[in-house]
Amino acid sequence: MDIRITEVQVGKEKQDSSTLGFGLTFTDYMFMMDYTEGKGWQDAQILPYSPIALEPSAMVFHYGQAIFEGLKAYRTADGKIQLFRPEVNFARLNVSCERLSMPTVDIDFVIQALIKLLELEADWVPSAPHTSLYIRPFMIATEPIVGVRASLTYKFMIILSPSGPYYKEGINPVKIHVENHYVRAVKGGIGFAKAAGNYAAGIKPQMDAKEKGYAQVLWLDGVEKKYIEEVGTMNVFFKINGEIITPALNGSILAGVTRDSSIQLLKDMGLKVTERKISIHEVYEAFEQGLLEEAFGTGTAAVISPIGELEWDGHIMSINKGEIGPIVHELYETLTGIQNGEVEDKYNWIVKI
Amino acid sequence: MDIRITEVQVGKEKQDSSTLGFGLTFTDYMFMMDYTEGKGWQDAQILPYSPIALEPSAMVFHYGQAIFEGLKAYRTADGKIQLFRPEVNFARLNVSCERLSMPTVDIDFVIQALIKLLELEADWVPSAPHTSLYIRPFMIATEPIVGVRASLTYKFMIILSPSGPYYKEGINPVKIHVENHYVRAVKGGIGFAKAAGNYAAGIKPQMDAKEKGYAQVLWLDGVEKKYIEEVGTMNVFFKINGEIITPALNGSILAGVTRDSSIQLLKDMGLKVTERKISIHEVYEAFEQGLLEEAFGTGTAAVISPIGELEWDGHIMSINKGEIGPIVHELYETLTGIQNGEVEDKYNWIVKI
Repeated sequence: MDIRITEVQVGKEKQDSSTLGFGLTFTDYMFMMDYTEGKGWQDAQILPYSPIALEPSAMVFHYGQAIFEGLKAYRTADGKIQLFRPEVNFARLNVSCERLSMPTVDIDFVIQALIKLLELEADWVPSAPHTSLYIRPFMIATEPIVGVRASLTYKFMIILSPSGPYYKEGINPVKIHVENHYVRAVKGGIGFAKAAGNYAAGIKPQMDAKEKGYAQVLWLDGVEKKYIEEVGTMNVFFKINGEIITPALNGSILAGVTRDSSIQLLKDMGLKVTERKISIHEVYEAFEQGLLEEAFGTGTAAVISPIGELEWDGHIMSINKGEIGPIVHELYETLTGIQNGEVEDKYNWIVKI
Repeated sequence: MDIRITEVQVGKEKQDSSTLGFGLTFTDYMFMMDYTEGKGWQDAQILPYSPIALEPSAMVFHYGQAIFEGLKAYRTADGKIQLFRPEVNFARLNVSCERLSMPTVDIDFVIQALIKLLELEADWVPSAPHTSLYIRPFMIATEPIVGVRASLTYKFMIILSPSGPYYKEGINPVKIHVENHYVRAVKGGIGFAKAAGNYAAGIKPQMDAKEKGYAQVLWLDGVEKKYIEEVGTMNVFFKINGEIITPALNGSILAGVTRDSSIQLLKDMGLKVTERKISIHEVYEAFEQGLLEEAFGTGTAAVISPIGELEWDGHIMSINKGEIGPIVHELYETLTGIQNGEVEDKYNWIVKI
């Protein structure tokens, strides 16, 4: 499929890259294509970033067929631009599509489209430390009908946002509230999909936690409220008595790209990494025995986020005295180093533009 | 707040009301108002039904803050127009708002706005049997930022669709598949809210069931896959050995307006109605003993939908020989009679326009 390009007349002014927030502003161009049942994906185009017009009856507003991905383009020291494992993000997009009865995309084609978009927008990839061009591919149902079924038409888009660190504080350890009341997802639901509906369910608990001084919530499973699932919008890892433990993918946990990459890097750092069910009780017991050495979240937006304190039902677990632990530190340096080209990529994770 | 009106230049042509589908076409006007954090709801207006323009980064596309309601305006035999319990729908809208961290609306104001809209659109309320003007209020997050939190801006809209019966077959009994794999919602989630994300989770299971010849799925609880929750997009009732049983509201079931009205009407028909936990095993046992007398779904769109067959894990339960039972029939006649003005409204449910 050809990609039609409509040129921007006057580009936007670029912000000093050392002052960037996260996801607040967007670049000059966006990618868009449309799907119609029976005809497939059509009309691929790169056009000026601008509002889209949808019928008020468009299904995305009513029945929630909306999925997305998040990845980043990085500026290397020698001024080049590179992506980190984009094929894994688009493969996961297709997994989300299947669960929500939405049409999948051709992974090679959308990566080519993204690269074409990035070539046009190269100047927008920031260069200050801890900055990147955040890439947001997403798909929405557009058929203008009120009735619950899969839409017959969709829009797939990619928008770009030059971004600073996700947390203004940088990689400082955060305080996390273990959520005992609200549930993010349950097996048999859509928790493993990067679907809009999963996030909607988490906003109120997250806001309640913020009011109590916590940066995020740690989700427990929806069946027994016992097993650890994710933390906020990240996967979660614990170092207990020298071993790294992370919840196994079980149908209600998102298969994070940063999670997968972290497991690989931690193993190559010589650590034992185990993916299995882990209960909050086990974490608390380890804490009481002095064996809970480090804890951290992993996700594309924040990369690696150390956990300095866990609050569970009134129990406070202070981890590594609230400071960044040595493993978190090394993992962060290695992973961000590979992403921005300062550390050798032994894994073939980098796609150079 | 004043409601600004922008007049339509040329109205759309109206379809013969006996040939209407459900939710396929929309009237000439719609209601819209906008919310900004700190300023509240503003700029209430009735304007020509038309596409809305949103930033591609609008939060509704990414994080799923989207809720809706469904109710109907009915044409009475003497040509008047009336609503059925609109205040209950808008109260539930506010319950959905709270769960999804969205701003609530002033119930009196939005009912006034709806009435003003209906006065303008009176000619669109169809008169053929089993038709009505379906009313779809909905609210979406519009802030153009990529980052998971509650949006600071929203749109609330009401659109109208002249509609025939939800099932083309009318009130014929349907075959239902009991869903053992997929889960609609779980306690602690957003199942009790009329949120877009709940519907997204149900589309794939519904389509899978359709392929196997079933009209809808019956959802079991997400914890034990044992207790009955809802059927498709409706609440569900069973008549077992003379008693009417419906699952109690438990946090993962939608509090249906038709459910509530049906409970009242069934009680006034002299039946014992019990709201409690009921397992699929209990229903199957009743079937085996010949005590499963009737079963039906209740919802605004389909009103009352008799269940002729339940399929559970290979077991087939044929209910009342696949025919409409006497209780379902009487309930349907009474409820639709009140709604269209043919049966006296002893409950003060009707709002005349």
